[in-house]
Amino acid sequence: MKVSGLGEFGLIDLLAKMIADSGVDKLGPGRPLIGIGDDAAAWRCASSIQLATVDTMVQGVHFSTDTASCREIGWKSLAINLSDIAAMGGKPEYTLVALALPGDTDTADITALYEGMIEIAREYGVAIVGGNISAAREVSVTITVIGGNVNGEVLRRSTARPGDVIAVTGYLGSAGAGLEMLLKKLEFKPEIAGYLRNAFLHPVPRIAEGQFLVKKGVTTAIDVSDGLLSDLRHICEASRVSARVDADKLPMHEAVREAFPERAVELALSGGEDYELLFTGKRNIVQEVQKGLACPVTIIGEITGRIAGDIEVVDAAGKPVKTGRAGWAHF
Amino acid sequence: MKVSGLGEFGLIDLLAKMIADSGVDKLGPGRPLIGIGDDAAAWRCASSIQLATVDTMVQGVHFSTDTASCREIGWKSLAINLSDIAAMGGKPEYTLVALALPGDTDTADITALYEGMIEIAREYGVAIVGGNISAAREVSVTITVIGGNVNGEVLRRSTARPGDVIAVTGYLGSAGAGLEMLLKKLEFKPEIAGYLRNAFLHPVPRIAEGQFLVKKGVTTAIDVSDGLLSDLRHICEASRVSARVDADKLPMHEAVREAFPERAVELALSGGEDYELLFTGKRNIVQEVQKGLACPVTIIGEITGRIAGDIEVVDAAGKPVKTGRAGWAHF
Repeated sequence: MKVSGLGEFGLIDLLAKMIADSGVDKLGPGRPLIGIGDDAAAWRCASSIQLATVDTMVQGVHFSTDTASCREIGWKSLAINLSDIAAMGGKPEYTLVALALPGDTDTADITALYEGMIEIAREYGVAIVGGNISAAREVSVTITVIGGNVNGEVLRRSTARPGDVIAVTGYLGSAGAGLEMLLKKLEFKPEIAGYLRNAFLHPVPRIAEGQFLVKKGVTTAIDVSDGLLSDLRHICEASRVSARVDADKLPMHEAVREAFPERAVELALSGGEDYELLFTGKRNIVQEVQKGLACPVTIIGEITGRIAGDIEVVDAAGKPVKTGRAGWAHF
Repeated sequence: MKVSGLGEFGLIDLLAKMIADSGVDKLGPGRPLIGIGDDAAAWRCASSIQLATVDTMVQGVHFSTDTASCREIGWKSLAINLSDIAAMGGKPEYTLVALALPGDTDTADITALYEGMIEIAREYGVAIVGGNISAAREVSVTITVIGGNVNGEVLRRSTARPGDVIAVTGYLGSAGAGLEMLLKKLEFKPEIAGYLRNAFLHPVPRIAEGQFLVKKGVTTAIDVSDGLLSDLRHICEASRVSARVDADKLPMHEAVREAFPERAVELALSGGEDYELLFTGKRNIVQEVQKGLACPVTIIGEITGRIAGDIEVVDAAGKPVKTGRAGWAHF
């Protein structure tokens, strides 16, 4: 069977099962706390927990120099990995950069890419400590980030419980709207265009927010990379629960509502790449998080039962909303 | 300027300088001990030292399914990273696998690739704890390995001193000979062909040997990936020393001498991918290493002076040997 027939998540499930069956997910001195199937891996190192994550951006798949500067691509390629550490409630500390590129690539493009990575590394106190450069026919950037946890616990995908409310930081659909604007060369007022472009190309990892969630007793989170529905499904499958999303509660920036008045809800449900934190918890805990964080924190639904991965989206009257495609998946 | 004009090592130097100038090589809680420019990065975590390395194998650049099975490619893609940890004297513990591939890839090829990785992970007690799968036009495997050190010190490239002898584990040129046999479809006796194929496709990381080097007080090592001359040059540049290699001392397996009688020395000097440990140290320390290790350990030359990166290769009479190309470099 072709990988495209199995799909990205089918392939991950298959490989994760092979690895679990072989027992090699449980080796290492610290017996991994969290292996394949979360935002990052986690294991114990002395009295602390170490986290590690890896992500690849491929030219023509994840980015295009038609719509983004190399500096922006560099920023984003590290940002999305920092976001995975944020979604564990951790602190990113060290990064390794593996670059694959054709020999006829302009050196100035590569130094610009590194300027973007250096900018965000400095902003979040992350050391660039190593990497690898290889010849290839297409450009790709694979970044590993290693981090520690701060508050002695990690945020997982597998701990959502019926009765939890579902909440999200910031706004949804902004990055998806930005991508659509760039791909279709749509024209908007400068402040709207600027916001949308920034949302797609300059995501801000919610590192302090992830740490604050742990501090307040939240245990379940993921970052919104594939799209709200897809990422909520990851939580629901890992936790073996079902969920209800209230479409009228979805936090959408006014620039998205103005630029895409008909499609704002669809972008919020399936747009992806917002790199906001999607989390669940008891209502009183989530309300404390709302009080304590400077960014918007919106309750958008509830964990409803025990049917693993079942998600319904309803309008203000409780009627089902048609959701279209579920979010980004490779293949 | 094109990357091909600058060359792999020119590009690495340029990016390492950008990173050093920006100060982001010195961030992180443990202040990195070793950043860009060694086999792996190293930093302190509580009372221990952590190591991390990343390497990419690209289809058509590093491997071809014409000459290797997917299982062999999987083995080797992890082996070369374990070798980087070995070259620091460390113990590999955790690994993350980032896979990029076209949707029309056969799923059986990917599961075979993972069988190879699982096999070597189990052999060396390394946990596969995470990864990433991405669509791409060409297949590449980028592996990160995180490890610890065992004996409180790490092997560096920068500590060679004039008067040190230069030594290497195992044999040189075997992998290069194997590659040449596979590419040119040369035919040899089965036992020779089997040895050469294995040398190229099934490299054995010298993990226990690296740890033993540290224990005996060796401080300087690298693994032979690009080729003896190229990797010795990395040591000589990092240590700001010059070196003499005695061509008649190079350890070559009889299969290589028999298959390539005219070119064995050239393959040993420049073949690459043997993943043996090349190290330097005081003669009495190296002699103790020779006594203590089961594998061959051969003294092949000497660190001669303070001209950074200058290497001469001489024959038994002390006359210069023409060396041809210096080893593998991308671009």
